[in-house]
Amino acid sequence: MTERPPLDAEALALFYRGYIDCLNRQAWGELGDFVHEEVERNGRRLGLSGYRGMLVRDYATIPDLRFEIALLVCEPPMVAARLDFSCHPRAGFLGLDAGGRRVSFSENVFYAVRDCRIASVWSILDKAAIEAQLSAGG
Amino acid sequence: MTERPPLDAEALALFYRGYIDCLNRQAWGELGDFVHEEVERNGRRLGLSGYRGMLVRDYATIPDLRFEIALLVCEPPMVAARLDFSCHPRAGFLGLDAGGRRVSFSENVFYAVRDCRIASVWSILDKAAIEAQLSAGG
Repeated sequence: MTERPPLDAEALALFYRGYIDCLNRQAWGELGDFVHEEVERNGRRLGLSGYRGMLVRDYATIPDLRFEIALLVCEPPMVAARLDFSCHPRAGFLGLDAGGRRVSFSENVFYAVRDCRIASVWSILDKAAIEAQLSAGG
Repeated sequence: MTERPPLDAEALALFYRGYIDCLNRQAWGELGDFVHEEVERNGRRLGLSGYRGMLVRDYATIPDLRFEIALLVCEPPMVAARLDFSCHPRAGFLGLDAGGRRVSFSENVFYAVRDCRIASVWSILDKAAIEAQLSAGG
């Protein structure tokens, strides 16, 4: 297998924006252009097919899911992003009963890029922010 | 007021490690070397004194609090860090009843650095990971 040269910060940012666009278009056939075959997330090896399955389930739980980049920090081979969401999750999302109400929350997430693909992901969703909105009866 | 030149990525990383060392030493007299007078956190203006008060309260709730840098991504003027914690929070931490049990969790956090000081912070703690450990009866 040919090793590709590592991406610089500017190319990483462009790559990452392409990845987010792929998710927003639910273009699962292109996901392998962005995500490594051996990808792991939060310490668990999912592989590309497991990662795709996770995203498909996310859209089933949140039909109006849309990824918006609020902050983007690139230092090869790492990308860090703050993603903003405003959507209507079905009941069961994160074990909460959003039940179709609109919630706004963020995800702070790190990615290690290897062979020009996302190889490791460390993600935290702001569950406390969603709980606060639901308990306020939003 | 004299404008200082912005820090490059390497200097930002050094600056950030100094900030974390300051927190771990609870060297509150030095906090102003790292944190801007007008600092805001998660959209709320705390100011340096409010930020210091938050940290002092954190140590009161978690006497063995210790900040460990797991990931660090620097692209001026931004810093992104994943911080790992392994500690014994008192009851009430994040509205949970940790009650002195050991929990391990991470924080994914972004910082905007202005005038060589942390001026904005966007932090998410992995509350779900703590809940999972407490419900497992750890």
